[in-house]
Amino acid sequence: MADGSRTTEARRDAVFGRWVVFSPARSRRPTDLKSHNPTTNPSPGPGGADAPKPSCPFCAGRESECAPEIFRVPPGEAPEASPWRIRVIENLYPALRRDLEPPAPRDGEAKEEEEESVPGELVVRGFGFHDVVIETPRHDVRLWDLDAEGVRDVLLAYAARVRQLEEHPTVKYVQVYLMGLLSSIPTSFSVFKNHGASAGASMAHSHSQMLGTPFVPPSVTTRLNCMKEVFEKLGNCSLCEIKSKENLISETPNFSAIVPFAASYPFEIWIIPRQHISYFHEIDQDKALDLGSLLKTMLQKLCKQLNDPPFNFMIHSAPFGLSSSCLPYAHWFLQIVPQLSVVGGFEIGSGCYINPVFPEDAAKILRDLDCST
Amino acid sequence: MADGSRTTEARRDAVFGRWVVFSPARSRRPTDLKSHNPTTNPSPGPGGADAPKPSCPFCAGRESECAPEIFRVPPGEAPEASPWRIRVIENLYPALRRDLEPPAPRDGEAKEEEEESVPGELVVRGFGFHDVVIETPRHDVRLWDLDAEGVRDVLLAYAARVRQLEEHPTVKYVQVYLMGLLSSIPTSFSVFKNHGASAGASMAHSHSQMLGTPFVPPSVTTRLNCMKEVFEKLGNCSLCEIKSKENLISETPNFSAIVPFAASYPFEIWIIPRQHISYFHEIDQDKALDLGSLLKTMLQKLCKQLNDPPFNFMIHSAPFGLSSSCLPYAHWFLQIVPQLSVVGGFEIGSGCYINPVFPEDAAKILRDLDCST
Repeated sequence: MADGSRTTEARRDAVFGRWVVFSPARSRRPTDLKSHNPTTNPSPGPGGADAPKPSCPFCAGRESECAPEIFRVPPGEAPEASPWRIRVIENLYPALRRDLEPPAPRDGEAKEEEEESVPGELVVRGFGFHDVVIETPRHDVRLWDLDAEGVRDVLLAYAARVRQLEEHPTVKYVQVYLMGLLSSIPTSFSVFKNHGASAGASMAHSHSQMLGTPFVPPSVTTRLNCMKEVFEKLGNCSLCEIKSKENLISETPNFSAIVPFAASYPFEIWIIPRQHISYFHEIDQDKALDLGSLLKTMLQKLCKQLNDPPFNFMIHSAPFGLSSSCLPYAHWFLQIVPQLSVVGGFEIGSGCYINPVFPEDAAKILRDLDCST
Repeated sequence: MADGSRTTEARRDAVFGRWVVFSPARSRRPTDLKSHNPTTNPSPGPGGADAPKPSCPFCAGRESECAPEIFRVPPGEAPEASPWRIRVIENLYPALRRDLEPPAPRDGEAKEEEEESVPGELVVRGFGFHDVVIETPRHDVRLWDLDAEGVRDVLLAYAARVRQLEEHPTVKYVQVYLMGLLSSIPTSFSVFKNHGASAGASMAHSHSQMLGTPFVPPSVTTRLNCMKEVFEKLGNCSLCEIKSKENLISETPNFSAIVPFAASYPFEIWIIPRQHISYFHEIDQDKALDLGSLLKTMLQKLCKQLNDPPFNFMIHSAPFGLSSSCLPYAHWFLQIVPQLSVVGGFEIGSGCYINPVFPEDAAKILRDLDCST
């Protein structure tokens, strides 16, 4: 399969059940693929590398300009002067709002309320939690510039906050995600915020987000249904079954980094626990260090290979309170998607993806890439 | 609802069944939303407005540099000298290939073949048709610069090509789509092609694409299932049921242009036949003129309101050979999506969308906008 003489094919994966068309662009090699929107490492402020960017509320010393803090690492009260490495705060512009009344759940489904102008159309109050994890007090440091211990602590901060949200009676799922250095391209967030004085800059300060929802998001349900179907056929979890060496980039004692069989995006990476574990937030110190080190390496590889592209990563975990019969096929993993292309009309219209890079080729390129230099 | 005092809410629509969180950005008005990547009207070549762009194979006079022609409007043989207004050609870089053997269909599902390394993972040959509709011989003309008759003829060319593909025994669906003037932002297409000498330029010459697939794409199945569910509850088609005046932008004898109740994207527009019709490709001359005129106006409005953003449009029709019991809930429509934001980590992870602009507000803005000046 990795012989360079590939022809167009469509693949369906065993996790999301998505169809992806692999269509190698003629006369171009996968190694030619580079970002057109490289994100520049945010330049330090006028006071030198440690100085905060004058307009960035995520920098140390400007804590009072942010929405309320939930906790910080190392733990402590929240006077501005107290040193911190990580802060978990409320999102000042939340997509979902913690101050609304939670919708009354009905068998795990959002309940019909307020109005229904056409059957099938539903409206529910936008209750939920939208938090921000500031990964570093420094404006000029990216997640993968931290050492493995630093990345570990960010992952442990995610896990700690997810465990807090699990205690809330109506939160069913927490989506943890990072939109990496998207400062140079428009987002629904920055579209508004860049008109403001301080907002554009704040986007460049490395941070992750998490959304706690009172419903299980549709993609999560689809993923679990797809994994259930495979489990019922096979008696094993689809992620535990992945054995292909062709798609492997790197392995550690606890995790494998692969380019998935039916990657929807060029150079998409999944980091998968080698043991069958359903919940990300049960991660311990040792595994978080192992994951932190692997995640750092993968981000470095993407940065080097693809010309510092913007990227997203998402942690796909199981919904809270999953019944014990579902746990055997629920296996958490982390998905990294470099943003090399916009989603076009065919993808939006059909739900199929077109990917010009075969996963085996992407895996080989990333496997062979040396980031130690 | 259109009183400006909106709070965050989540809506599910009755067509795609998608959940969208409407989260108005505080202290910003929807009218502030502008594209950061305005597409510039491609400048005419050195020979004046009518001269072809030197490197663009879609321009008149360079027909021999394109993949084979399927037909042209007005009809005629394909000598370079023969004048044309529209050309339908094969895509030189097809995502699916007409020269592969079609997969053997199995109950409308793609058939398992070639290899199955993990159950649930499928691979099929990438057979299909990928065509390009060049909407004008001139490099400096956008679709909405054509008069209504010109847009009508483009729509009729789509319909004629869809009817041809319907004759192919294994084609189950044709997705017609336009990626409007995406020259300034990266696409999976341009990522490769911009490295070449002539390719960047060719993206700016207005053209649409269509993909004929040997399977019904997953989004189409989801849409029909969702519309079926509403039909069974209500005894009517979800698109026929839309009556809200708040979401209406404009109406013609045959079509309504609306911002849908649960628009996934800011300023998304649907143009819907007012009569219940399942197949786009059955459109006649009169209706195509009516649609051409309305489509032109809607694109002008988006261009004016949003600072000439790149956009996609997709025609959502019914799969070929749909059984007569399904026709009552299958209603074709055209979806226009301005590209103001990239799809972020929450959307990719959860399948829910976040939209900062309430549909009623977007509809009012577009309704009130005068493009005659």
